[in-house]
Amino acid sequence: MQVGLIGLGKMGLNLGKNLIDHDYEVAAFDLNVNAVEEISKYGAIETSSFKELIKILDGPRIIWIMVPHAVVDSVINEITPYLSKGDIVIEAGNSHYKDSIRRYGQLKQVGVSFMDVGTSGGMEGARNGACYMVGGDVEVWSMVEPIFRDTAVEKGYLYAGPAGSGHFLKMVHNGIEYGMMAAIGEGFEVLEKSEFDFDYEKVARVWNNGSVIRSWLIDLTERAFSKDANLEQIKGTMHSSGEGKWTVETALDLQAATPVIAMSLLMRYRSLDHDTFTGKVVAALRNEFGGHAVEKSD
Amino acid sequence: MQVGLIGLGKMGLNLGKNLIDHDYEVAAFDLNVNAVEEISKYGAIETSSFKELIKILDGPRIIWIMVPHAVVDSVINEITPYLSKGDIVIEAGNSHYKDSIRRYGQLKQVGVSFMDVGTSGGMEGARNGACYMVGGDVEVWSMVEPIFRDTAVEKGYLYAGPAGSGHFLKMVHNGIEYGMMAAIGEGFEVLEKSEFDFDYEKVARVWNNGSVIRSWLIDLTERAFSKDANLEQIKGTMHSSGEGKWTVETALDLQAATPVIAMSLLMRYRSLDHDTFTGKVVAALRNEFGGHAVEKSD
Repeated sequence: MQVGLIGLGKMGLNLGKNLIDHDYEVAAFDLNVNAVEEISKYGAIETSSFKELIKILDGPRIIWIMVPHAVVDSVINEITPYLSKGDIVIEAGNSHYKDSIRRYGQLKQVGVSFMDVGTSGGMEGARNGACYMVGGDVEVWSMVEPIFRDTAVEKGYLYAGPAGSGHFLKMVHNGIEYGMMAAIGEGFEVLEKSEFDFDYEKVARVWNNGSVIRSWLIDLTERAFSKDANLEQIKGTMHSSGEGKWTVETALDLQAATPVIAMSLLMRYRSLDHDTFTGKVVAALRNEFGGHAVEKSD
Repeated sequence: MQVGLIGLGKMGLNLGKNLIDHDYEVAAFDLNVNAVEEISKYGAIETSSFKELIKILDGPRIIWIMVPHAVVDSVINEITPYLSKGDIVIEAGNSHYKDSIRRYGQLKQVGVSFMDVGTSGGMEGARNGACYMVGGDVEVWSMVEPIFRDTAVEKGYLYAGPAGSGHFLKMVHNGIEYGMMAAIGEGFEVLEKSEFDFDYEKVARVWNNGSVIRSWLIDLTERAFSKDANLEQIKGTMHSSGEGKWTVETALDLQAATPVIAMSLLMRYRSLDHDTFTGKVVAALRNEFGGHAVEKSD
């Protein structure tokens, strides 16, 4: 079975190797020629343009797009002129589900099927077995299911429903992830400020063996503390790549009360600021009404 | 090795059977005679009073207490007159770590050692392999470690440090658990209010296979949805048994910012109220300044 793979970043490159391991004929393209060279050494067909990638594949084609969500539209626009009726575009990055619904409609107009795929499990998952949440037409699903079965962990793929549902599920998955990670972080914050001198690596290890909170995230926590016992080399700045924000925005639109996920997002934003204007205002007010000392800005 | 087991509730009964499976000689007592009968049928020595339980054991004795935290002090007061110097009391329920530090000091005065043990993993864990966080004197730890090794899952026990540290770790574990559970619940809230018709059991299953949030809690989520596809039989009232509150109280004392865990606790309290006075006040104010309609109390 042939797969045209567009996007050879951290996820795409690993997914490409995973596909090749499972005997797929992979034709690959990325603007980064080094990545194309790496995957071609692993057995992929090297191509040097969107056009060449599409033309090299037999119809009906399966095109797997794995690029940052900001460039998905431009990739789709680049390839659309070369696609034929019956071709299938799989978009497996972290797109907003509303964009996926729009893209589904846009490609439907030219007879091309579109499947939106939420991919979880990080680079390790893409390489050795990912977790997929797939939205799109059910008739198309039956044609592409083998690809997901082959490159996922066992039971690690789900046909979620119509267009947009795959990315919707992935978005909510990431929202849950934000909340879980914040809870874990805050728990260790309490340990760190306590009167006890805990060995955090050992704490994470015992919590990951038999406790209620055992999880991959606690496993990763153990791994992080094994490298740096008190995380002295890591600053507590918590960046985010959008899905948590989308979850909260969607919750607001749906009037769904999700204060824990929202708080975990807001605390990520808080962590980006060295100082806050909120803090300045509150300190100023305490000084105004009570004469409480303020600290000088640094 | 002999163990005197006090408390044959959901956890104690399962732990007793686990001990017997591992060739411990278990003498058991509980005010509930049916529970004593059940464990004696499984091979434990039946006793009918605190005094009989203590007297039947050879010294130095190991007494394992597994009772609700409200009655730990009365159990300790009941047994103390019969204990001898060198005996070891293991308290493996969900006590507040400050109570454990106090009890450690109290028993030390009569020459009895005290170990505070946080136990996680629920009834299944107590029966087949628990997760233990243990505080107390390190010399005593070396004497009792085999019991924990034998009845825990592999790597599922940790000597955490001095008196109180075991229950402190368990408290924080539960605080993290509150946050994780709230994040999971809120995620499904968004799915439920969405335009899609997700199969929640399948969603939980795919999230538990290869995704970043894979965990025992997601596994239990799948199990719950397998019994009741939309949880129609379950009311969304979220009770709590104290450890989350203790975590937040401790965080306040330590000035540790834990808004996600705190919010998960507050949302549990919110769930206990059918209506809120907050809501009445806000609705009344909107009416006062803007003439916005209020709903009549039901």
